[in-house]
Amino acid sequence: MSTAEQGYFTEENSAEVVISRNAKATDARLAEVMAVVTKHLHAAVKEIEPTQEEWFEAIKFLTEVGHTCNDWRQEYILLSDSLGVSMLVDAINNRKPSGASESTVLGPFHVPDAPELPMGSDICLDQKGEPMLVRGRILGTDGQPVSGAKIDVWQANDEGFYDVQQKGLQPDFNLRGVFRTGADGTYHFKGVKPKFYPIPDDGPVGRMLEKLGRHPYRPAHLHYILEADEFETLITHIFDPDDPYIHSDAVFGVKESLLATFEKVEDAARVKAAGFDGPYFEVVHDFVLAPAA
Amino acid sequence: MSTAEQGYFTEENSAEVVISRNAKATDARLAEVMAVVTKHLHAAVKEIEPTQEEWFEAIKFLTEVGHTCNDWRQEYILLSDSLGVSMLVDAINNRKPSGASESTVLGPFHVPDAPELPMGSDICLDQKGEPMLVRGRILGTDGQPVSGAKIDVWQANDEGFYDVQQKGLQPDFNLRGVFRTGADGTYHFKGVKPKFYPIPDDGPVGRMLEKLGRHPYRPAHLHYILEADEFETLITHIFDPDDPYIHSDAVFGVKESLLATFEKVEDAARVKAAGFDGPYFEVVHDFVLAPAA
Ligand SMILES: [Cu+2]
Ligand SMILES: [Fe+3]
Ligand SMILES: [Fe+3]
Repeated sequence: MSTAEQGYFTEENSAEVVISRNAKATDARLAEVMAVVTKHLHAAVKEIEPTQEEWFEAIKFLTEVGHTCNDWRQEYILLSDSLGVSMLVDAINNRKPSGASESTVLGPFHVPDAPELPMGSDICLDQKGEPMLVRGRILGTDGQPVSGAKIDVWQANDEGFYDVQQKGLQPDFNLRGVFRTGADGTYHFKGVKPKFYPIPDDGPVGRMLEKLGRHPYRPAHLHYILEADEFETLITHIFDPDDPYIHSDAVFGVKESLLATFEKVEDAARVKAAGFDGPYFEVVHDFVLAPAA
Repeated sequence: MSTAEQGYFTEENSAEVVISRNAKATDARLAEVMAVVTKHLHAAVKEIEPTQEEWFEAIKFLTEVGHTCNDWRQEYILLSDSLGVSMLVDAINNRKPSGASESTVLGPFHVPDAPELPMGSDICLDQKGEPMLVRGRILGTDGQPVSGAKIDVWQANDEGFYDVQQKGLQPDFNLRGVFRTGADGTYHFKGVKPKFYPIPDDGPVGRMLEKLGRHPYRPAHLHYILEADEFETLITHIFDPDDPYIHSDAVFGVKESLLATFEKVEDAARVKAAGFDGPYFEVVHDFVLAPAA
């Protein structure tokens, strides 16, 4: 019997020895997951060859990330986000058929009970920022309009804050709304041009980003959840391609297909037709929903 | 320019996109470490293909491991220990020349200021358990005795507890001692036959072990730190090969070369010569120190 078969540790067979201990697991999926985790974890340690001090630094970092989590702050999700893991899990769970719009991460600022508004409403309740008109169509992969689609939209204000981050400062449900498409599948609503904002960077993840020469900003975006009978729910954003951080989203949420255009409209006739009293940004973006499985 | 070069996330290039963000890192070693971590982390996620719910279970587990850490409990070290990572880091940092004794993990129960005792002393201060005589030699890889070697030894009692775990119940410094070799390099001291004991299993790591069908026990052992001028310090254990958990140490600390023999001595002449008044266990083990680099 080899030392590994006896259960004895060797540097060479370290992962195999650890994995072999799970032979009597009661949770088969956990055993499968831990076998993969153990294999890649040991491979990483063998490649890094950490000193004992570096290993203990890692232990302290993971502990501090845990200690930073509380009822309203989830530093492990921030770590997952900032290492691209959240986007990877999103991608794995949302592989779309050709032609369908792509997903991106939900983010922490969705509120489930935003009010349903008449199509065309202005979701900006405090008249702050540069006015914006967003419009487009909700389509199936067959190109047909989707009737009765529920469009749940939310965005940060012109200073990069969501209403829930500025309770008392912003009106409740500012820059949030739910709309429902008619037979032609079109939608339109008013808001304000969004601004980039940082993920919380005053904790261990922020300090890690700083040492890695990375900034904590997410480029300006609008969040969407699109739901319709007989279609897969789509959780996504659209992004401002002219944002300074468009190529370096701190959480890797940008995909090329999610770039919208933010056209500045100054033509008096168009301004009047859109119901504004001065220049505004017009964002035209269609979404294509995948059929339900 | 490809989407990856633009910094946009794709499922295929996920790890490369994340790693490319560290180009301006101020901490070059951290960037090197995080590149390896990111590569293996993304590989693991791609192999596991977790659902969103499974990913969130992992986030909650890591958070709970962090929340279980306090001034006297380090659950992340337990996690590292129970996944064999602590032993792997130990092995990487303690590759020994041929013929030298092997290392194993330090463990959490070392006390730096244990008393230096005359050679032959009994470190068992409460007369509990089966008596044991431990003896052997400290040698160099050239086979020559090491004079003036400091032997720092500590062990659990016959119920599997260290003194620091039973303050008030066990005398202070029970089953700990520091000895120094003379010119012949020999050592001997008395103690009690140690017993297996569990790592703390009332937290998230213990619950993980249970789902994996693993027990939390470490087989009976004696801890050593051996220090001598011109030699590498050796941190190791010796183990009882007849322990029920010898093939399944919860922290993977056992190596074949660290198995000692615990001989039960009942012969009256030997009992008398050893200074006991009844049967005892005799453990004979030599240690070979590697020359200092
Ligand atoms: Cu790997
Ligand atoms: Fe957002
Ligand atoms: Fe121990």
